Amino acid sequence: MKIEEIKTKDLRPKEFIKQKVSEISASVGGGLAINALSGGVDSSAVTMLGHKALKERLKTYFIDNGLMRAGEPKRVATVFKKLGVPVEILDAKEQFFGALRGVTDPEEKREAITQTFYKHVFGKLVRDSKARHLLQGTILTDVDETVAGIKRQHNVFAQLGIDPQEAFGYSIIEPLIQLRKDGVKKIAKSLGLPPSIYARIPFPGPALSARIIGEVTPEKIEIVRAATDITEEELCARDAFQYMAILHNDRVTGIRGGKRDFGLQIELRCWQSKDARTAKPTRLPYSILEKLAKRITREVEGVVSVTYNITEKPPSTIEAV
Amino acid sequence: MKIEEIKTKDLRPKEFIKQKVSEISASVGGGLAINALSGGVDSSAVTMLGHKALKERLKTYFIDNGLMRAGEPKRVATVFKKLGVPVEILDAKEQFFGALRGVTDPEEKREAITQTFYKHVFGKLVRDSKARHLLQGTILTDVDETVAGIKRQHNVFAQLGIDPQEAFGYSIIEPLIQLRKDGVKKIAKSLGLPPSIYARIPFPGPALSARIIGEVTPEKIEIVRAATDITEEELCARDAFQYMAILHNDRVTGIRGGKRDFGLQIELRCWQSKDARTAKPTRLPYSILEKLAKRITREVEGVVSVTYNITEKPPSTIEAV
Repeated sequence: MKIEEIKTKDLRPKEFIKQKVSEISASVGGGLAINALSGGVDSSAVTMLGHKALKERLKTYFIDNGLMRAGEPKRVATVFKKLGVPVEILDAKEQFFGALRGVTDPEEKREAITQTFYKHVFGKLVRDSKARHLLQGTILTDVDETVAGIKRQHNVFAQLGIDPQEAFGYSIIEPLIQLRKDGVKKIAKSLGLPPSIYARIPFPGPALSARIIGEVTPEKIEIVRAATDITEEELCARDAFQYMAILHNDRVTGIRGGKRDFGLQIELRCWQSKDARTAKPTRLPYSILEKLAKRITREVEGVVSVTYNITEKPPSTIEAV
Repeated sequence: MKIEEIKTKDLRPKEFIKQKVSEISASVGGGLAINALSGGVDSSAVTMLGHKALKERLKTYFIDNGLMRAGEPKRVATVFKKLGVPVEILDAKEQFFGALRGVTDPEEKREAITQTFYKHVFGKLVRDSKARHLLQGTILTDVDETVAGIKRQHNVFAQLGIDPQEAFGYSIIEPLIQLRKDGVKKIAKSLGLPPSIYARIPFPGPALSARIIGEVTPEKIEIVRAATDITEEELCARDAFQYMAILHNDRVTGIRGGKRDFGLQIELRCWQSKDARTAKPTRLPYSILEKLAKRITREVEGVVSVTYNITEKPPSTIEAV
């Protein structure tokens, strides 16, 4: 079935919200729905739409996988508490780090996170909840990339460990599927979400594990979290689509205290893009790049080298993993 | 023994050359001397000084280790042929690639190249030649870095496989040891060497193997050679101390023909420096960086990402391996 795109310029937020709220109400009827909130704009907008339609019949979970940025679980919880939307936080750090141990292949890493999320953590919540309706923040770009073979196919209930044979009556509700990222931002703003949600730069599903080349360990997450913190602090005032710090697995030669030191390298990327389908590196002033390199090599243990991405998408992608 | 530096501003090339030629003559007497020419400015200047002092009693070898840049062995041979200096070219590609097979640790890689060069290839030439004098292009920066523990200690005759106990009578002659790189360039020019030698950017001893993170194979040498060729072509007109393309071992995600492709990454570095002791990244215009990234991802098989180094030395080093 062809999905009909709603172009951002044609989008009327109030009407769109009203329509989606009534669609969700009609689909769920008197039943229960469930969703996972990551704090990204897509899942935040879906949480608000679901809350408007269903109130306490929507169960929203924030799953702390240990791969989030500094202070992120607390920040998201605070935002929704202020809006009166109940969110349950689930600590699943050990399960995710356990699943990632020893995994170095990028596809296998994504698969370990996906499996842990769907089968073991969120899957269990869905099965235990008796909810038959699942709200998801899928957007049109995700669909394009799935069709093109860039993202994995989401057969969601099978991934949740729910037998498709027995799954009659289960439904997936994807209220944002006709929109692209800039449309979702308009909706999020109109839903009363704060700029820290709708003006936030995009952040990938596998969180900081998508910013580590090679094995993901709690130690490496600490390193890339610290580099990410500095990068976001220095670049948050820039007009960029997305920016990130990536921890490489390769070691490069450096000097510390006059002695050779095989250290770590951080790669920075800062993108100009409308919708993530194509993107160009931002022509950041060298003064900013040099300040970033100085701060990261001084403040992040073990890092001796920082590079800046100069390749467009395509042939690059936005994320490295 | 403290080596007395001759500052470049105090250097009188004609007098320096005259003095070094007479010192070499006095040291070697009626004997034979030998040296290895890499085509770099240091070994080229030493070859010319030795040739002036000793004529046919200096045996100069150019060892083709398979790790050189595109067209390099032929280019160097042509330069010295024109100057009337006999140079013997030795094809040792198989020996070097054999020694590098399966070696991934940077120190072990350098060691494999050093051992192959000294013990097996050049060592054999020295032992077979009956030469008791070895001319070397050591400069003051090499000495500093050896003392500081950044470069390996050069106990040269032991490395050549010549027993130090029996080595009485062997001598190492290092006519450039009081100079730094800019002094050597002045001397090389005064010796009649062409700009392709004295104005050439510095190039490391282990050649392109210093530009590969991880195992060195003939295939990877081809990739980094092609990227180096493009980088030198685009940057040769810039006023930079040194520039280079480095092939990473890490794979990053890219897109080719709309499909995901885990591809290779090339890191570019372009340094501002006087003497290599400290260095800053050159603030290259983004138009040049973007052109480099486009050319490298289009023309070099398998490369999907190009980055630019933004870290100073220290804590970075000039080379990555």
